[in-house]
Amino acid sequence: MRKLYHLWLSPQSRKVRVLLKEKGLEFDLEVEKLWERRPEFLAMDPSGNGPVLVEHDGRALADSQAICEYLDEVYPNKMLIGFDPPSRAETRRLVAWWDHKFGPEVSEPLVFEKVMKRFMGMGHPESSVIRIAHQNMKIHLDYIAWLTERRNWLAGDDFSLADIAAAAHLSCLDYLGDIPWADHPGAHDWYARVKSRPSFRPLLADHIPGLPPPKHYADLDF
Amino acid sequence: MRKLYHLWLSPQSRKVRVLLKEKGLEFDLEVEKLWERRPEFLAMDPSGNGPVLVEHDGRALADSQAICEYLDEVYPNKMLIGFDPPSRAETRRLVAWWDHKFGPEVSEPLVFEKVMKRFMGMGHPESSVIRIAHQNMKIHLDYIAWLTERRNWLAGDDFSLADIAAAAHLSCLDYLGDIPWADHPGAHDWYARVKSRPSFRPLLADHIPGLPPPKHYADLDF
Repeated sequence: MRKLYHLWLSPQSRKVRVLLKEKGLEFDLEVEKLWERRPEFLAMDPSGNGPVLVEHDGRALADSQAICEYLDEVYPNKMLIGFDPPSRAETRRLVAWWDHKFGPEVSEPLVFEKVMKRFMGMGHPESSVIRIAHQNMKIHLDYIAWLTERRNWLAGDDFSLADIAAAAHLSCLDYLGDIPWADHPGAHDWYARVKSRPSFRPLLADHIPGLPPPKHYADLDF
Repeated sequence: MRKLYHLWLSPQSRKVRVLLKEKGLEFDLEVEKLWERRPEFLAMDPSGNGPVLVEHDGRALADSQAICEYLDEVYPNKMLIGFDPPSRAETRRLVAWWDHKFGPEVSEPLVFEKVMKRFMGMGHPESSVIRIAHQNMKIHLDYIAWLTERRNWLAGDDFSLADIAAAAHLSCLDYLGDIPWADHPGAHDWYARVKSRPSFRPLLADHIPGLPPPKHYADLDF
């Protein structure tokens, strides 16, 4: 059986989970406590960042974007990176936006301060870091509204990996109750559409022991 | 004419420059002072990170990896991301390694402290930051040696975008005289092979006014 080594609140792990579901591919989930730096895991992913996907032929794939590109090449039943080079470039630009701009500016500091520090016994969250990340978040929520005023989905007419990546990041922060949806109706409406997709349901059923999500997290009418 | 908006010591810009040359594609270079946040540039690349490639049909592409993927799809005369899904996954894993691990751990802090601060009048380099980046660099140089003891090039038998990305980062630091080549013969021998490729020559001819490279920078026998 295909297996994904993941962390519950890793946006990159969630991106791969949703892509697998969109393609109808079965997989098992196994939590990888990245901070333990398990040698067998580092042999598969020397970066130690996760996630890692082990295909049923035993092949181990690392780096979430390399995994998604691989899956889109090997299982083209439903293509999610786009259908021609320009739309693929736009999808990839936006995936990079979420993983490498929104991540460091917003989701990584928030998940680190609010969750990882606690699990790793590293003390209290730093309120100044949280305040800056919340401030940064607004620009990104506005960007979603700006894009979806002009397009059906983030990268164009079709639902794509850009939507999956963005929603993967936002779903982690929504689990923490950190998204001011009421102030950002455009982003809210787009997220409601993503949230109602069957591929997204398993994420909404996530329940981390000792860290329950707010009530609206799994609610399609939030 | 195709145009690349770039910065001289941006590894991501250099990655695209070498890829274009490997494919035999002509282009003009135009320096983009990213910190000026020029509205016309931000319209093409809202992240403001650069580089941006404007194709001769006027299409603007942003995000260096989206640009490289686009070029490999549209100009497949010489494919540089790999020939089958597993080798493509390995190439992409390693490109991400350089751009998103080596970058934040080594090349971004060094270029920022040693170059950008000066150009932007932000004061003196922080020696503790430089020391940590130099310490981090060793692990990456050892990783190059480890990979090339097992493979012809970083991602496998063939020269690929993984080699281009790695050499793009290292060439920026070599321009600053920051790489202890003598302590890392494996990385040295691999870099000597990359450096001798015709696609790499234009980078070796770079000469930033007020910031000349060390003598060995352009020397193939360094």
